[in-house]
Amino acid sequence: MLKQGVFMEKELEQIENLKNSKNITKRVVSEALEEKLFTINEVLDHGFIRVVDYMGTDASIVQAARVSYGAGTKQTTDDKALINYLMRNDHTSPFEMCEIKLHVKLPIFVARQWIRHRTASVNEYSARYSILKNEFYLPKEENICEQSTFNKQGRGDSIDSNFAGRVIDMLKAESMQAYHNYQNMLNIDDENNVIDQNRPKIAREIARINLPLSMYTEWYWKIDLHNLLHFLRLRMNPHAQYEIREYANVIAEIVKSWVPFTYEAFMKYKINNMTLTNSSVNILKKIIKGEDVKFEDYDLSKGEWNELMKKFEINEKLI
Amino acid sequence: MLKQGVFMEKELEQIENLKNSKNITKRVVSEALEEKLFTINEVLDHGFIRVVDYMGTDASIVQAARVSYGAGTKQTTDDKALINYLMRNDHTSPFEMCEIKLHVKLPIFVARQWIRHRTASVNEYSARYSILKNEFYLPKEENICEQSTFNKQGRGDSIDSNFAGRVIDMLKAESMQAYHNYQNMLNIDDENNVIDQNRPKIAREIARINLPLSMYTEWYWKIDLHNLLHFLRLRMNPHAQYEIREYANVIAEIVKSWVPFTYEAFMKYKINNMTLTNSSVNILKKIIKGEDVKFEDYDLSKGEWNELMKKFEINEKLI
Amino acid sequence: MLKQGVFMEKELEQIENLKNSKNITKRVVSEALEEKLFTINEVLDHGFIRVVDYMGTDASIVQAARVSYGAGTKQTTDDKALINYLMRNDHTSPFEMCEIKLHVKLPIFVARQWIRHRTASVNEYSARYSILKNEFYLPKEENICEQSTFNKQGRGDSIDSNFAGRVIDMLKAESMQAYHNYQNMLNIDDENNVIDQNRPKIAREIARINLPLSMYTEWYWKIDLHNLLHFLRLRMNPHAQYEIREYANVIAEIVKSWVPFTYEAFMKYKINNMTLTNSSVNILKKIIKGEDVKFEDYDLSKGEWNELMKKFEINEKLI
Amino acid sequence: MLKQGVFMEKELEQIENLKNSKNITKRVVSEALEEKLFTINEVLDHGFIRVVDYMGTDASIVQAARVSYGAGTKQTTDDKALINYLMRNDHTSPFEMCEIKLHVKLPIFVARQWIRHRTASVNEYSARYSILKNEFYLPKEENICEQSTFNKQGRGDSIDSNFAGRVIDMLKAESMQAYHNYQNMLNIDDENNVIDQNRPKIAREIARINLPLSMYTEWYWKIDLHNLLHFLRLRMNPHAQYEIREYANVIAEIVKSWVPFTYEAFMKYKINNMTLTNSSVNILKKIIKGEDVKFEDYDLSKGEWNELMKKFEINEKLI
Repeated sequence: MLKQGVFMEKELEQIENLKNSKNITKRVVSEALEEKLFTINEVLDHGFIRVVDYMGTDASIVQAARVSYGAGTKQTTDDKALINYLMRNDHTSPFEMCEIKLHVKLPIFVARQWIRHRTASVNEYSARYSILKNEFYLPKEENICEQSTFNKQGRGDSIDSNFAGRVIDMLKAESMQAYHNYQNMLNIDDENNVIDQNRPKIAREIARINLPLSMYTEWYWKIDLHNLLHFLRLRMNPHAQYEIREYANVIAEIVKSWVPFTYEAFMKYKINNMTLTNSSVNILKKIIKGEDVKFEDYDLSKGEWNELMKKFEINEKLI
Repeated sequence: MLKQGVFMEKELEQIENLKNSKNITKRVVSEALEEKLFTINEVLDHGFIRVVDYMGTDASIVQAARVSYGAGTKQTTDDKALINYLMRNDHTSPFEMCEIKLHVKLPIFVARQWIRHRTASVNEYSARYSILKNEFYLPKEENICEQSTFNKQGRGDSIDSNFAGRVIDMLKAESMQAYHNYQNMLNIDDENNVIDQNRPKIAREIARINLPLSMYTEWYWKIDLHNLLHFLRLRMNPHAQYEIREYANVIAEIVKSWVPFTYEAFMKYKINNMTLTNSSVNILKKIIKGEDVKFEDYDLSKGEWNELMKKFEINEKLI
Repeated sequence: MLKQGVFMEKELEQIENLKNSKNITKRVVSEALEEKLFTINEVLDHGFIRVVDYMGTDASIVQAARVSYGAGTKQTTDDKALINYLMRNDHTSPFEMCEIKLHVKLPIFVARQWIRHRTASVNEYSARYSILKNEFYLPKEENICEQSTFNKQGRGDSIDSNFAGRVIDMLKAESMQAYHNYQNMLNIDDENNVIDQNRPKIAREIARINLPLSMYTEWYWKIDLHNLLHFLRLRMNPHAQYEIREYANVIAEIVKSWVPFTYEAFMKYKINNMTLTNSSVNILKKIIKGEDVKFEDYDLSKGEWNELMKKFEINEKLI
Repeated sequence: MLKQGVFMEKELEQIENLKNSKNITKRVVSEALEEKLFTINEVLDHGFIRVVDYMGTDASIVQAARVSYGAGTKQTTDDKALINYLMRNDHTSPFEMCEIKLHVKLPIFVARQWIRHRTASVNEYSARYSILKNEFYLPKEENICEQSTFNKQGRGDSIDSNFAGRVIDMLKAESMQAYHNYQNMLNIDDENNVIDQNRPKIAREIARINLPLSMYTEWYWKIDLHNLLHFLRLRMNPHAQYEIREYANVIAEIVKSWVPFTYEAFMKYKINNMTLTNSSVNILKKIIKGEDVKFEDYDLSKGEWNELMKKFEINEKLI
């Protein structure tokens, strides 16, 4: 199941040991997340996300919001209603009371987008200290797309499969060459043996500068639930780059297991929602009353107007 | 043992329930901290600190520093050496990988110093939403001190016990009066019954504005280990106000149980240490070589000079 | 115009000097904000807000969003459209590129709400180091309200003026008594003379603990524009306590002068707006199509349903 | 003077315009920094740092520390003494009251180290939105070094110039090839003309994934003075990678012009200093008293012991 070369046997054994560990704790436990703990969730061609630790559950949010002495309410329906209320009204601080730690393997260009979320803790694999593995992200054919013509920072249609194949071959050959040069500078082969005793080993921090952005790196990443939801809201969004969205989607599933009430409230109030300006509200009010509305009478841009009409399935011909 | 009125029976029962909980987890566990979980650590006259949740142990710091797949090294001595190295060289990010959540009851003037530490999450008991309990901090006689004559923001000697007693009586009477007025505005008595049906109940958010800074409040406070150590470094310091130091000292004991290697490294490299400027180093070098040093030859202030001579027990007469 | 006792003459002179200063700079300048610089904007009975420094204008946001070499576009309409786009799509980082520094005088209970905004820098007047002035917040009669019956943390109707007057008298007497006791502990009179040479001066950090939350404090507060707008969104909201809203409203006027395009976009997209869940969108779509909708068919709470019907002026009788 | 191709003429003209701007402001001004505003400070082979805005001076730190109404003290010596005191005693918040904004051009591997400093605001040139320029970092011969044998993350000696030259040739050829492939995927030539109308243009966000970490990027970076000094302390350190140190050194010169008292205090108390544990203090005390010290009697590691002996020029033979 696991991709060849990604994990050495020792690492798989370590993960297996952790998955079999059974400790006694007085802390609150999320049983559904315990099931997933330490497990490798594959992402892209060589990447993964593993939950390595967590703190709190839905009950912890309720407990903090109430500054209570015990374990929150006994009534599950009350907890759920409170969490909905907190989410809807942007009472964000109780959601900071849950914390999660992930072990992530990801291409560097994804890592560069990810790290922009500053309210998190990170320990990254150091390419100054250690030798990077020979792992690069290669898009699948269907992910080699044209530049979008209407979205300046996005992807358009997939391209001809034949041409896509050639692009991938080129990316692959180039990555292999870059890694070959890297090893040459380090003067070290695939088995970590010195290639030529008479040649210097260039410092790792210099040898790595020509490696491509598609190279995989790894990090431990720890964040509280409130800031994680903010990350998800931005990175699950269709405007986010496909590759980071793949990671966000896996994390969303983790959050769903971990804090199901919070996840449901988040999806309802923060993802599957729409924000209307006053003008848009006024337009809808008029339409509901059966009155005419004209684009010229409002301060919406053409884009906003079209989005509104489309969202509410308003046939402009009719109005 | 517990102060009368601080806890209602229901709250003590809730705490007892939590202390008896036994859950299975795959997460790493600090056995010494588990012992202390949920327990009330009394501070000052009505305050307390309770650990309500935590994440990680010393091993988690090692694991993150190495971006490892398993549970850190098996060799305890290696873990300890690595933690010492990280602490000494200000590699702070691995210490962010541990997290703790406390339930704290504290006077408002202490809370105002505490909240200045921004890299933490807080949920405070709301005096807009709920009625505050009749609990005020009253210093003990020995803590009623004179204004320090050399430290503009500190306490000097204790004052005459007789006079201190009168100060305390005055503080007490004033607090009682303030709480009495508070209840009168709320139109509610000690048993939460309405005093007079014909009188309005003033809004809680207004009624509380004349309560004193000595009033107790409560909050849930969550912080990572790195930032907690920074808090301790500032608040265990003799220049911190006595009352917040009492809290810091209790937290220090908690940290000692939780992450003993980290605590030891912290005390060694961050608390029991001394920082010397280049000039001070040069002075010591000269003294070691048996050469003369003169105050006039260096850029130390008189205060710095005296501190240096005192710290290294240098008899200025002799040099 | 200025309240007696709030400013010593020396302070007014210092402010006047600053207002007359004329320096040459290559930095971008907001002329409308320059007009207001250093000026005292009075808030509540003794409070104020003064802009003491700022960095950037609307043009700086455009410049950063484009990572440009010059001063942004020459076309004002382009700048405005870009700022609207950034605001609408939550591209928040360019708004972090402007910064403002305020000198604020405010009651302690307001300061305690204010300080919850963590992404700001603060230097507060120290009551450990200095003696607090005899200034307390006293609500006006119309601000002495009943506890709201439907909003657990809010104010309801104003109360009878006669009764309100008695409440204010009580608050005033209590504050005066508290300050009198404070001075007695410090052993110092209104002119900072020692009252009794034979009595100790209690340390300031202890003497202040019984002062009420209505006491005024002062601070320098520095924050970037993005985080300031977040502050305004929460603190201009009708659910915020009246007293902090008064400060937020003054800051809003400052922002309007400083960065007019940003202010307009903020009001449009972040204040005067409404967020709809998918269910609410579906309800409106049905109504627009002339179809029946029933409360039972949707996952809205009764409160959400009523809010929707009211906002869109839908006569439920008719549907 | 400027490297060919780095700046288009339009950009140089924009910079020149800004350098000639003369605005009136009431804000405090740093005359020495005004001189440097907008100017290009070259770093490495294609990088630069430009100050594009700032807020505050040494006087602002004093003003905030005193929560004063005017412009700080008139006495320069007092300001200097206060700044020394604040720096020495880690009263960090007044240093947060100054802010600076830089426009930086830097290789991506440097940007990845830089971005770890989270308490800053960043707007980076987007390779999803725009086409990257053909600029890569190529080390000079003397910067092609061997892996350090004692520092696992550092550089050792320079290597043979002949061999270094071959490494550079290889890095250069590889970068050129990568950029050539990038343009081919974008289907665009050096003049931004379409190469082949019948071929698709691959989306920019995909085409860039194989570009190397040595590629230059640009960003606007804004940070307060306290956090900037922390950045400098870590990045001017000999353990930081050479390339980021080059940037830190340029920023240090900027800080020196901007806030000379702060810079001096920083160098004295935070850079040119040494921290001793209690054991080290005890060792020195014994030596000063002329007593014998033995390694075995103390809890220093061998490394710490050697460092101490070397720093204080203690001849171990003699003791």
